[in-house]
Amino acid sequence: MAKLYFYYSAMNAGKTTTLLQSAHNYSERGMRVAIFTPKLDHRAGSGTVASRIGLQAQGVAFERGDDLDTLIRADIAAQGKLDCVLVDEAQFLTKAQVWQLSEVVDELAIPVLCYGLRTDFRGELFEGSQYLLAWADELTEIKTICHTGKKATMTVRVDERGRALQAGPQVEIGGNERYVSVSRAEFKKVMRGESTVDGLVPQQPQLPL
Amino acid sequence: MAKLYFYYSAMNAGKTTTLLQSAHNYSERGMRVAIFTPKLDHRAGSGTVASRIGLQAQGVAFERGDDLDTLIRADIAAQGKLDCVLVDEAQFLTKAQVWQLSEVVDELAIPVLCYGLRTDFRGELFEGSQYLLAWADELTEIKTICHTGKKATMTVRVDERGRALQAGPQVEIGGNERYVSVSRAEFKKVMRGESTVDGLVPQQPQLPL
Amino acid sequence: MAKLYFYYSAMNAGKTTTLLQSAHNYSERGMRVAIFTPKLDHRAGSGTVASRIGLQAQGVAFERGDDLDTLIRADIAAQGKLDCVLVDEAQFLTKAQVWQLSEVVDELAIPVLCYGLRTDFRGELFEGSQYLLAWADELTEIKTICHTGKKATMTVRVDERGRALQAGPQVEIGGNERYVSVSRAEFKKVMRGESTVDGLVPQQPQLPL
Amino acid sequence: MAKLYFYYSAMNAGKTTTLLQSAHNYSERGMRVAIFTPKLDHRAGSGTVASRIGLQAQGVAFERGDDLDTLIRADIAAQGKLDCVLVDEAQFLTKAQVWQLSEVVDELAIPVLCYGLRTDFRGELFEGSQYLLAWADELTEIKTICHTGKKATMTVRVDERGRALQAGPQVEIGGNERYVSVSRAEFKKVMRGESTVDGLVPQQPQLPL
Repeated sequence: MAKLYFYYSAMNAGKTTTLLQSAHNYSERGMRVAIFTPKLDHRAGSGTVASRIGLQAQGVAFERGDDLDTLIRADIAAQGKLDCVLVDEAQFLTKAQVWQLSEVVDELAIPVLCYGLRTDFRGELFEGSQYLLAWADELTEIKTICHTGKKATMTVRVDERGRALQAGPQVEIGGNERYVSVSRAEFKKVMRGESTVDGLVPQQPQLPL
Repeated sequence: MAKLYFYYSAMNAGKTTTLLQSAHNYSERGMRVAIFTPKLDHRAGSGTVASRIGLQAQGVAFERGDDLDTLIRADIAAQGKLDCVLVDEAQFLTKAQVWQLSEVVDELAIPVLCYGLRTDFRGELFEGSQYLLAWADELTEIKTICHTGKKATMTVRVDERGRALQAGPQVEIGGNERYVSVSRAEFKKVMRGESTVDGLVPQQPQLPL
Repeated sequence: MAKLYFYYSAMNAGKTTTLLQSAHNYSERGMRVAIFTPKLDHRAGSGTVASRIGLQAQGVAFERGDDLDTLIRADIAAQGKLDCVLVDEAQFLTKAQVWQLSEVVDELAIPVLCYGLRTDFRGELFEGSQYLLAWADELTEIKTICHTGKKATMTVRVDERGRALQAGPQVEIGGNERYVSVSRAEFKKVMRGESTVDGLVPQQPQLPL
Repeated sequence: MAKLYFYYSAMNAGKTTTLLQSAHNYSERGMRVAIFTPKLDHRAGSGTVASRIGLQAQGVAFERGDDLDTLIRADIAAQGKLDCVLVDEAQFLTKAQVWQLSEVVDELAIPVLCYGLRTDFRGELFEGSQYLLAWADELTEIKTICHTGKKATMTVRVDERGRALQAGPQVEIGGNERYVSVSRAEFKKVMRGESTVDGLVPQQPQLPL
C-alpha cells in the first residue's frame, strides 16, 4: 500500500543524502523514480538535487503554480511505470501541491517521499511542512546534532558574528545570513541574545530558509 | 534529559487510555504526575480525564488564557517535586501554552507528554497540534484503524445518516453531529459524497472537534 | 497490506492495556479480532487477558506445541472473517509459532499484533522476542520509566529486600521473587550489588519472567 | 543523555551512507567522532568504511577479541574528548563487544550509533544484531525496497542464476554467491524455489553475510 512520507529535520541533517540513497535503492532494483525540487533553489543548477556530502542527481524543477499530480501523470504517460516520487526541499510545497501529492498516493498508488525542514528561523512551520505534518501517513525525523550535544530540532538565522536575526522574510536568496541547527533550548538562548553560534556557521553556500 | 512529546492520532484511537497508563506507570514507581485538560471538555465533569474504554483520573482543568508554566511552578511550590506533566486534548492548547510547556521542559527539566488530535474535520491542524508538531522533541502516532482496513489518520464529521458535514465551526459543543476516524483515501470519498459512514458512528458521547 | 507488529517493552509498561485498546478500536468499527495468550499465565484464569490498570478481555489460551496458523484458520472457518490477531505475553511464543504468525500475515493478509517483553531478568532475549525482533515488519517500543527518571528498558528479578537474583530459570511460577523495570545503567548497578530497588517492588501479583 | 542506537536493515539499504552522514554532521559542528569497523571486511582496505553510493571515510578496524571499551578509552586518552562512536557492519560484533559499547554509553556518556544487518540469509539473527536488539536504547529501521514493491526486511543468498542457497556458513568471503534484499513473503517464495531473483543481483562486490 502506497503512503505519503514526510522526512523532516532541521537544516544540514542530511535530508538530500537520504533522498538520493532512496532513489539509488529503487534504481538498483530496476525500478524507476522521479525526483522533484522547487525552482527556488538555484544553488546547483535548475533541477539539480545536491547533497553537502558530495552526491547529486538530476530532478525536475517545479514552480509554486505547478500541479504536481498533472506533472506526474504526464511523466508516466511519456516514460512508463513509475515506482516512487521523491521531493526535495518539500517545505516549499504549497498546500495545493501537498494535496496533489496525496492524490498520487491515493489514486495512482505510488509512494511519495518528501524531505524538508520543519520550521523556519522564527520557529514557524513552512506551508509545505504544515500540510505534510497534517496529511502524511508517516512522519519520520532525520536526526542531527546541536553543538551543545543535544538533538537539533530548530534553525536560527544569524549574521556574520553568529548573532540571531529575529525578523525578515521567511525565504531570502543571497545575502550574508547563515543558518545553524540548534536544540530548542539553545534556540531560545540565541534568540534572547544570551548565546551566539559564531564559528559554527557552515561555510558552504546554503539555501536560505 | 526531559523532552516535549506529542502523541497524535485521529479520534477514538485510545489517546486518553495511553495518557492514563503513563500516569499509572509513574505513580507505581513512586513518582508524582500532574494531568491537565482543557475546560472546553465537559463530558466527564470539570478536570476529569476519562477514556472510552472505562478508565479515568482527576486532572486540572485549564482555560485558554491560563499560563501553564505559572500553573506548574505553583503546583510544585505547593506539592513538591513533579516528575511528569500530561496534557489531554492537547489540540486545544494555544500557541502560547505550547511555548509555556516547552519552558517547563527546557527550564524545569520535567518531561511533558501531550496527547491530541492532529487535524479537524476539515483536515486542518488545530492550533495546539500545529505548534506541537512544530516544537515537540518527539512526534509519535497512536495508530487506529479505518473501517476499510487501512490506518485511520483523518476525522470526518457526519450527520445522523453518516454523510459528511463540509463546513461549520472547528469546535462545536452539543448537536447531533458525530465524528468518525478514517483513512485519507476514505476521507476524500466521504467528503466528495461517494461514501457514507452510516452505522459506523460511535454511540457514546464524544468531544466535538 | 497486513503486517507483523512487535510491541516490546520492559515489565509493567502497559502492554496489555495497549493490546486491549487496539482490540476495542477494531470492535468499535464492527471488525472482528482474536486474542491469543500463552497457557503459562494463570493469573487471571485460562485465556483471560488482564491489565494491571483494570481492563480485561477473554482470549484463547495456547500451548507451546500448538500451531497458531492452524488455530487461526479454524477460527475463521468457524466464525467468519477475521480482521486482526492480537497476542499477549508474546515473549513466550516458540520460534515455530512466530513463523506461523508470519504465515497468517503473508498468506491470509491479516495483521498480527504481538505484545511482549524484550529481555528476561538476565538480559537475554526470550525465544518469542528473538524471532519477533528478527522477522516482524514493525518494531515499536512501549515506553516506561525507571525510578531513576531514565527510560526503563531492562527487568531485574529481586528478592524481598530488593536485591538482584542473578540466576535461576527464565520462567518460574510462584515464589516471592518480584520483577522491576529499570534503565540499563540501573540494571548494571543492581546486578553488581551497588543498588537495590527495595520499596519499588510492585505489590500486585505479576507474571514471573 | 547518551544512548546506544541500533540502526538495522536488510542489505543494500544505505546503512553506511547514513553512518557517514552522521559522522559528517558531527564534524561540521566541530565535534570529534570515532568510526569502528570489523576487520572481516576487506573490500575497501582495512579500516576503510565505504558506501556503495560513493562515499567513504577512514575508520578503526577491530577484531572479535578486541575490547572496544578499552580501545575507546585509549583513543580518548590519546586524542581528547570524543563526541560520538559509530560502528559499521555491527552485526559482526560479539556479545561481549555489544556490552562494552553499552559501557561507553553508560559510563562515559558518549552516544554510540551502530549500523548493521538484522538477519542472515537463513533468517537468523547475527550475534551482534541479537544483543543490539536486546540492549540498545533505540531501534531504528533503515528502510529499503523489495523488487515486488514491498518493504525489504530479509536477505536471500543466491547463486549465479538467482536461485536460493539454503545452507552454508553465516559468513563466507569470496565465491560467486550474491545477496538480495527481499520482503519476508518473497523470501519464503525464493526459499521454496517458487521465485528467483535473477537479474536483480547487484553487480558490485558485496560483503558476504
